[in-house]
Amino acid sequence: MRSPQFHRNEENRPSPRIPSPHFNSTVSVQKLRSFNTLILIFRFASFCFSLASTVFMVTNSRGGSDSPNWQDFDAFIFVFAANAIVAVYSFFEMLASVWEILKGTTVLPEIMQVWFDFGHDQVFAYLLLSADAAGTALVMTLRGTDTCTHVTAFCVQSGISIALGFAGFMFLGLSSLLSGFRLACFVFNGSRFLL
Amino acid sequence: MRSPQFHRNEENRPSPRIPSPHFNSTVSVQKLRSFNTLILIFRFASFCFSLASTVFMVTNSRGGSDSPNWQDFDAFIFVFAANAIVAVYSFFEMLASVWEILKGTTVLPEIMQVWFDFGHDQVFAYLLLSADAAGTALVMTLRGTDTCTHVTAFCVQSGISIALGFAGFMFLGLSSLLSGFRLACFVFNGSRFLL
Repeated sequence: MRSPQFHRNEENRPSPRIPSPHFNSTVSVQKLRSFNTLILIFRFASFCFSLASTVFMVTNSRGGSDSPNWQDFDAFIFVFAANAIVAVYSFFEMLASVWEILKGTTVLPEIMQVWFDFGHDQVFAYLLLSADAAGTALVMTLRGTDTCTHVTAFCVQSGISIALGFAGFMFLGLSSLLSGFRLACFVFNGSRFLL
Repeated sequence: MRSPQFHRNEENRPSPRIPSPHFNSTVSVQKLRSFNTLILIFRFASFCFSLASTVFMVTNSRGGSDSPNWQDFDAFIFVFAANAIVAVYSFFEMLASVWEILKGTTVLPEIMQVWFDFGHDQVFAYLLLSADAAGTALVMTLRGTDTCTHVTAFCVQSGISIALGFAGFMFLGLSSLLSGFRLACFVFNGSRFLL
């Protein structure tokens, strides 16, 4: 006959074969929180660089009627617009990430949120890259002309704005990879919670 | 007591709960083949457009010493190089797709193949888009100058080359989405075979 002591021990011993659902869930929640924190960092970096790029481009006029103005060049308007869009988007995505980290749920329904994030990350990353590439081509063309010879600061400031835009693109691209992974988790596991 | 007839019927009746592994595998193979055929179509389109873009750019010089030449512009050299790289890459990826459709196995080991495809699709899509955006900015700048006023054909041909490059990018982007899905299948299911 088994002693009561032995029986109690056996009952209290956790089974290694059947992990507790609560334990699993806690690990998933912690993993997801770390993952969301990483996305938040990338989105914050993307926001900062895009905002800085927008500000550098907007303030890029020298005041005189003969001086060049960024609004005279289509490619610079494109750089400004793309960076402004990405800055606004990154700001709202940051808020959504903070909400998710604090509340544990997505702002939109889960399926909409994961598709929204990935789709917009992809489109805006392509948009920002094409704007910055167009801006780079324009700056390189201007470099051999009077515009850059007479008003050097205009070209330097344009170059800085574009470089900041490229940095913003880099972090947006990283966010896009992570949101793609989250979407894949959702498609294959039916939940944005990681493996 | 159960009759032998009843017993036999029960044994012969196929169970709806446990599908035959062979049936599943055949469906997966067929799905994968259709999927690979779709990728092959996109890669073929991407190859055609990039090659056409490369040819249009290379032949874009008017012969005279005063006439503009595509090699005088960095952005056009970038358009040529990016399209040439994508054309070569798409050609080899087409061969790899045909191999996979015919033989049923990947050219490289499966894990390398899915990562190689997705990584290169992403990088080359970004490369091609930035080249075409830079080319567009240059063409728009040139449009107001003597280069386009005197030699209209040069600017028109550059524009066509860039437009073809954008079409190539579109199909490369679609391939990238599909190869991303295949990679996700591999990461989550341990096999490139679809769900």
